[in-house]
Amino acid sequence: MFSKETYMARRATLMERMGSGVCLFLGNDEQGLHYAGNTFRYRQDSTFLYYFGISQAGLSAIIDVDNARTILFGDELTIDDIIWMGVQPTLHQKAERVGITEVQPARKLMEYIDKCGVEKRAVSYLPPYRAEHRLKLMDWLGLPPSEQPGSVPFIRAVVSQRNFKTEEEIVEIERACNVTADMHIEAMRVLRPGMMEYEVVAAMEAVAMANGCETSFATIATINGQTLHNHYHGNKVNEGDLFLIDAGAETAMGYAGDMSSTIPASKTFTTRQREVYEIQNAMHNGAVAALRPGINYMDVYDYSSLILVEGMKNLGLMKGNAEDAVREGAHALFFPHGLGHMMGLDVHDMENLGEVWVGYDGQPKSTQFGRRSQRLALPLQPGFVLTVEPGIYFIPELIDLWQKEGKFADFINYDKVQTYKDFGGIRNEEDYLITPTGARRLGKQIPLTPEEVEALR
Amino acid sequence: MFSKETYMARRATLMERMGSGVCLFLGNDEQGLHYAGNTFRYRQDSTFLYYFGISQAGLSAIIDVDNARTILFGDELTIDDIIWMGVQPTLHQKAERVGITEVQPARKLMEYIDKCGVEKRAVSYLPPYRAEHRLKLMDWLGLPPSEQPGSVPFIRAVVSQRNFKTEEEIVEIERACNVTADMHIEAMRVLRPGMMEYEVVAAMEAVAMANGCETSFATIATINGQTLHNHYHGNKVNEGDLFLIDAGAETAMGYAGDMSSTIPASKTFTTRQREVYEIQNAMHNGAVAALRPGINYMDVYDYSSLILVEGMKNLGLMKGNAEDAVREGAHALFFPHGLGHMMGLDVHDMENLGEVWVGYDGQPKSTQFGRRSQRLALPLQPGFVLTVEPGIYFIPELIDLWQKEGKFADFINYDKVQTYKDFGGIRNEEDYLITPTGARRLGKQIPLTPEEVEALR
Repeated sequence: MFSKETYMARRATLMERMGSGVCLFLGNDEQGLHYAGNTFRYRQDSTFLYYFGISQAGLSAIIDVDNARTILFGDELTIDDIIWMGVQPTLHQKAERVGITEVQPARKLMEYIDKCGVEKRAVSYLPPYRAEHRLKLMDWLGLPPSEQPGSVPFIRAVVSQRNFKTEEEIVEIERACNVTADMHIEAMRVLRPGMMEYEVVAAMEAVAMANGCETSFATIATINGQTLHNHYHGNKVNEGDLFLIDAGAETAMGYAGDMSSTIPASKTFTTRQREVYEIQNAMHNGAVAALRPGINYMDVYDYSSLILVEGMKNLGLMKGNAEDAVREGAHALFFPHGLGHMMGLDVHDMENLGEVWVGYDGQPKSTQFGRRSQRLALPLQPGFVLTVEPGIYFIPELIDLWQKEGKFADFINYDKVQTYKDFGGIRNEEDYLITPTGARRLGKQIPLTPEEVEALR
Repeated sequence: MFSKETYMARRATLMERMGSGVCLFLGNDEQGLHYAGNTFRYRQDSTFLYYFGISQAGLSAIIDVDNARTILFGDELTIDDIIWMGVQPTLHQKAERVGITEVQPARKLMEYIDKCGVEKRAVSYLPPYRAEHRLKLMDWLGLPPSEQPGSVPFIRAVVSQRNFKTEEEIVEIERACNVTADMHIEAMRVLRPGMMEYEVVAAMEAVAMANGCETSFATIATINGQTLHNHYHGNKVNEGDLFLIDAGAETAMGYAGDMSSTIPASKTFTTRQREVYEIQNAMHNGAVAALRPGINYMDVYDYSSLILVEGMKNLGLMKGNAEDAVREGAHALFFPHGLGHMMGLDVHDMENLGEVWVGYDGQPKSTQFGRRSQRLALPLQPGFVLTVEPGIYFIPELIDLWQKEGKFADFINYDKVQTYKDFGGIRNEEDYLITPTGARRLGKQIPLTPEEVEALR
């Protein structure tokens, strides 16, 4: 937890940017997997963590800008709670640690909201992303679940703060990134043909846990890297497979790391694997070299995509003018996702606030396949923390679909592409802080070049 | 997955026991932790798994008893799903594997329910335990979230089936129990003074994962065993500590194991630790020896509690007539939870259906502290699978509270008990199947006696 001054300053800034009104913050509750009592990992809402720092179920908060009041709503532990959950600081003590002096029982929240109604002061809230939030907003604000869009001024005020990571946040993110790097390095050490995918996951997640971290998202560790979000770990790893990992650690304070790597199951890459791997490395290094304040991250996406097309032309998989191919979206056959995303208290930072507000400043997103998955299309600014994660995939179903539709036949040599349908996928990913003069990698370096990866095998 | 005949037979039995009506089954959806897209482990509803066997988000089902129809509602994958989530069997193929011939798109469910309304046929549902269930029942049945109690005949029919484990289920539960035992044995091997609690958790959970299992509930691994459900793992383990573990594995089919063990952080127990440990062992062994068809599990709880009181009297911590002490509830100062619970597809099997239906056949539960936490108070029957997990704890806050209130002063030597306030807690737990003639332990044996535990240290 940061000092109380940090949380007080964050709330003061929010009040200043909101100017007026009442902001309601919904803390997260426990979630039962298959009965109410079987809860797994508890995760507090990230915006709640950002302003109030308390990771505990059953809390809500109000920042009443008009009256310059911050109130935490929640109940103190009973003796039954202590028997089952242990002794903890009281809620009042926890509140004091983050500079909150006003704590009220949970039931008092409704009274406060009702009073605002009488005073004709609207209560702002952020977009709900859990069913439990929708039930609360229905109960408390009388809004049907389908009519709870969230308040845009509130969203924008929060984004304008959380977008810029402070020194103390960067220290915490770098801690997450170092554990994340160790998870990947461990996988590179243990992976052998004949293993099951879940054995690699076990080794990586043990690194996170043994460092007092959680995983920041569900681990991807698969011989089917062409499936972008593949959480199945039941395959046997065979000689010659490419093994794609996308995994990260989250610190106790909630800050995330997020890296990807691609490893040959055999000790070395095959020639064909290395050819494609080197194109991906060039996309990655080109993107990293372009990072600096002022450059729009969509331009970096375009630049990385251009490198992809040029590389694929060299391999005979694409043809034609590379800039035209990228503008029209032909590259997305091989690179159907975005180049990266903001990272912080959420691994996709603030995704729940609406990608268009976080990554597009309220402007509409492209509808082009591939490009529409780019989560960030803003000029970069010092203090942004983001991922760089270009990839190259051969997705048999997509190849067949596009070929059947005759899509981008001027740019894609489908006959040659057909011979790569058993290739799989490659992605490497690192995390960067935008500095006043360029960018700095966060966390220790994981092997990136073919030589570095092979050296660990 | 079991054979299609298993699922067809289960559904046929349900239809027979219901006799008439329409049963609605809510499959579970994905749950976002801190934004909708950041989902961790997906867990299907256990009753849905029991009758339909398909672990996939976004499904519902109807068993229309009146018309002898079973319909699965859900949507087929799109090309976007395939790109992000990979190729899978179609929903129709999955349905066929469990003997379901009728599959309809998700949107058709409302039509079916509306038609039942027109026909004046009530739609039965089970008690909701997730906020997403409450939203669905509100949308589909027009019931406010506070008025969704679930249908008792439907609950009772399900309990009457799931209570009795078949041979093929026992094989699967025993698989979970064997991995669970290995998790505990691994902890006994690696635990050393100076380690952090989370390092032990990392080692144990890696065993589960490396066997293709999940954890069946959030792991307890703590030097503060006196806190019953302690999921904090941030303490350093010191010489002389008692380390209490309650952890289990869940197989890919969803069946759970659940065991507890208590280990001395030093290589051996101290004399004081061993004295209390041996009382707990006697409680455990006494309970196990009593398991047989016909005996009420509340009587086994009483018997185990009697052994506790006799042991505590020998140590000078209790006094007076042991049977009176147990009847009045004085033993619960040291043993505030139940003796065990049903186990199967849920680690607390069917807890979401209502403990009073699963463990009390609809009869009211005791309100006595300790006894009220007993989850099962029925005569045991062959096919029941249950845990045996007596414990002895010294909970400082509870000791002080009872002493201040003068509670059970005739039975408790508070002056002596005060000297044990730094003791911690002890629990050992195994899983048993009730057989026609007695009971059989499921899974390999974990060290139970002080000698067996010390031999692994």
